[in-house]
Amino acid sequence: MGEVLKIEHGTETLRITQEGGVRRIAMARPPANALSLGFMEELTNALTAAAEDRNVRVVVLASDAKVFCAGHDLKEMQAARDEADKGRCFFEKTFQRCADLMQTIVRLRVPVIAEVNGVATAAGCQLVASCDLAIASEEARFATPGVNIGLFCSTPMVALSRNVHRKHAMEMLLTGETTDPTHAREIGLVNRVVPKQYLGQVVQKYAETIASKSAFTLKIGKEAFYRQAELPLSEAYKETARVMVENMMAKDADEGMSAFIEKRTPTWVDE
Amino acid sequence: MGEVLKIEHGTETLRITQEGGVRRIAMARPPANALSLGFMEELTNALTAAAEDRNVRVVVLASDAKVFCAGHDLKEMQAARDEADKGRCFFEKTFQRCADLMQTIVRLRVPVIAEVNGVATAAGCQLVASCDLAIASEEARFATPGVNIGLFCSTPMVALSRNVHRKHAMEMLLTGETTDPTHAREIGLVNRVVPKQYLGQVVQKYAETIASKSAFTLKIGKEAFYRQAELPLSEAYKETARVMVENMMAKDADEGMSAFIEKRTPTWVDE
Amino acid sequence: MGEVLKIEHGTETLRITQEGGVRRIAMARPPANALSLGFMEELTNALTAAAEDRNVRVVVLASDAKVFCAGHDLKEMQAARDEADKGRCFFEKTFQRCADLMQTIVRLRVPVIAEVNGVATAAGCQLVASCDLAIASEEARFATPGVNIGLFCSTPMVALSRNVHRKHAMEMLLTGETTDPTHAREIGLVNRVVPKQYLGQVVQKYAETIASKSAFTLKIGKEAFYRQAELPLSEAYKETARVMVENMMAKDADEGMSAFIEKRTPTWVDE
Repeated sequence: MGEVLKIEHGTETLRITQEGGVRRIAMARPPANALSLGFMEELTNALTAAAEDRNVRVVVLASDAKVFCAGHDLKEMQAARDEADKGRCFFEKTFQRCADLMQTIVRLRVPVIAEVNGVATAAGCQLVASCDLAIASEEARFATPGVNIGLFCSTPMVALSRNVHRKHAMEMLLTGETTDPTHAREIGLVNRVVPKQYLGQVVQKYAETIASKSAFTLKIGKEAFYRQAELPLSEAYKETARVMVENMMAKDADEGMSAFIEKRTPTWVDE
Repeated sequence: MGEVLKIEHGTETLRITQEGGVRRIAMARPPANALSLGFMEELTNALTAAAEDRNVRVVVLASDAKVFCAGHDLKEMQAARDEADKGRCFFEKTFQRCADLMQTIVRLRVPVIAEVNGVATAAGCQLVASCDLAIASEEARFATPGVNIGLFCSTPMVALSRNVHRKHAMEMLLTGETTDPTHAREIGLVNRVVPKQYLGQVVQKYAETIASKSAFTLKIGKEAFYRQAELPLSEAYKETARVMVENMMAKDADEGMSAFIEKRTPTWVDE
Repeated sequence: MGEVLKIEHGTETLRITQEGGVRRIAMARPPANALSLGFMEELTNALTAAAEDRNVRVVVLASDAKVFCAGHDLKEMQAARDEADKGRCFFEKTFQRCADLMQTIVRLRVPVIAEVNGVATAAGCQLVASCDLAIASEEARFATPGVNIGLFCSTPMVALSRNVHRKHAMEMLLTGETTDPTHAREIGLVNRVVPKQYLGQVVQKYAETIASKSAFTLKIGKEAFYRQAELPLSEAYKETARVMVENMMAKDADEGMSAFIEKRTPTWVDE
């Protein structure tokens, strides 16, 4: 994995650190990490920048506020109603940028782990659902409560309904009620629930495990995962058989398989 | 929610009541609520009528018989074999009407909750799977036992396999065996299991919670849910981003968001 | 079910037995039942032969080695790198044959039950995921550990991600870590977990239950299941309504429904 890096930078509302191959992007826009238009752009840029840095092998999306993320910035949205078009143009921009942010996570070349310390609601719940993995503390809470304010969580449900069964998604969407982390784990929204004081450690353990793999292999696999998920079975097999051959022809597969047969630790060149 | 309504009407085989915004349609065709051609038409009409009534904000599909619903009317179907075409035309009508009934539930503008008090088998199990939510009593039992009578539950599995994982669906379909409500909850077929004496209360609580939301918001959200479920990710986001903008431009979103910011209860106009 | 058959034959690496309508194909290529090009062909042929035999009503895919199946034959694959094309042609053949084997299971006219006695990793885990049902002993272990050797489990994930939720699939794929049978059951990869000494009995019970059904009905239902799973709701209903009519017109449905009404055991003619 090369030498251990420790960098700390960020914008006013993001605190970005790196240790080894693990890039941690912590939202820091108190009180609720509300996803204003500007904040979504920052977050998208921070994710993209992480993927462009060859030292980054996995991203952790976390929060330094008390909540994980409470969704869109309602005050900003209501203010836009004063514009000549009653906000339509601003709303279009908002939901476009939101869809971009979520799909940036899905398309990012490196795996993204959500570290959920508190409330994750609406587009905040969507962030969790969009990540490849999610680890939650016992304090985490999940909801898609848009229905309570007359705004159905229609974009969050795209991610949510690709994580959990329909009746579970519908219960959250139609009632707007809050789900505790144990239930969120049972239905498939998060992978693991741990006491708050262990959250950082457990996420770090997952991140380091993944960071120890070939970055090339993770990239080719993550890409193929989401692509095949949308294909009929026979096309999915055609596509992934092709991916497997490309993967076999790469240096890291040769190295990894040789190391396995020779019972030694592989040394990745990430290609 | 306006004043509390209490109406009671129905056909010979349906008992229809309403309290507040909750329309309860109880199947009452003993002993098994068998889905004859005529009964499926009545049920479809009752659902459609509910959706056309602006006072209806949520539908509960229940049973006043001892079983919830045991599927198609086998005697009626066997009798059709005496016709010149050996029943083909009648069978076509039956399965067409069954598909219409199930898709009427899915497309209904208001959420539909299944209140499952007893046995729900074959097309009866399909009714439960087709509803947006399902609450079962501890006496409920689920099965797709068509395989036992030489008639694979091929239409029920359309709904079932969109509720639960493949191996769980296949176990029910291939063995024909009965599933208890706890397992049904674990696999995603029902949302909640309660003692029989509390079933009505718990369903009413869910129904009232949902009935307290903006009917416009529920409609736009439910429609979008099932539409996006069939789209690739990027198209699903395009579609739902558009839905979110329309939702934002509606009066109830403005009212709901203002009320939230002003910490007061919203007053819906349902548009 | 006709008379009880007992046959025992097989290749060097498969042990094939039959009792009643249950064909058991046990992989016997120690130590790991590695899926070499030749072994995959044998397995595919054995499955196809089973489906062509009218006495076979259900197939059990098992192992006579200590492990269930540890995936592809890494040594064979590494050896192919010495060829002029660095193995590309061999790898293409390997993944093509693997995709054929897995889709042979899915398309087989009879249900296939995985009897998982030990380790099922990579393409071995894919075999389990590809079967219609899977019963595991408490000694079973599941993993898609390709990422550890620089070769992402991209083809196994086609089957895996059609069995379990995305975050569960991703955890196995990105970490490469091993899943115990209880967790495999919880996430939907296997139907049931039993103590090792009961594995054979429980699988036999499932197999006999299924073998007692009409083979025609099972065939028409299994085919329709995987076909409708890839269709939008309205098309899935059109397709399965058509299948139900065909099923109704067949002799076994008439017999099964008559027997049910007359409270007697049906006698299938399998058409």
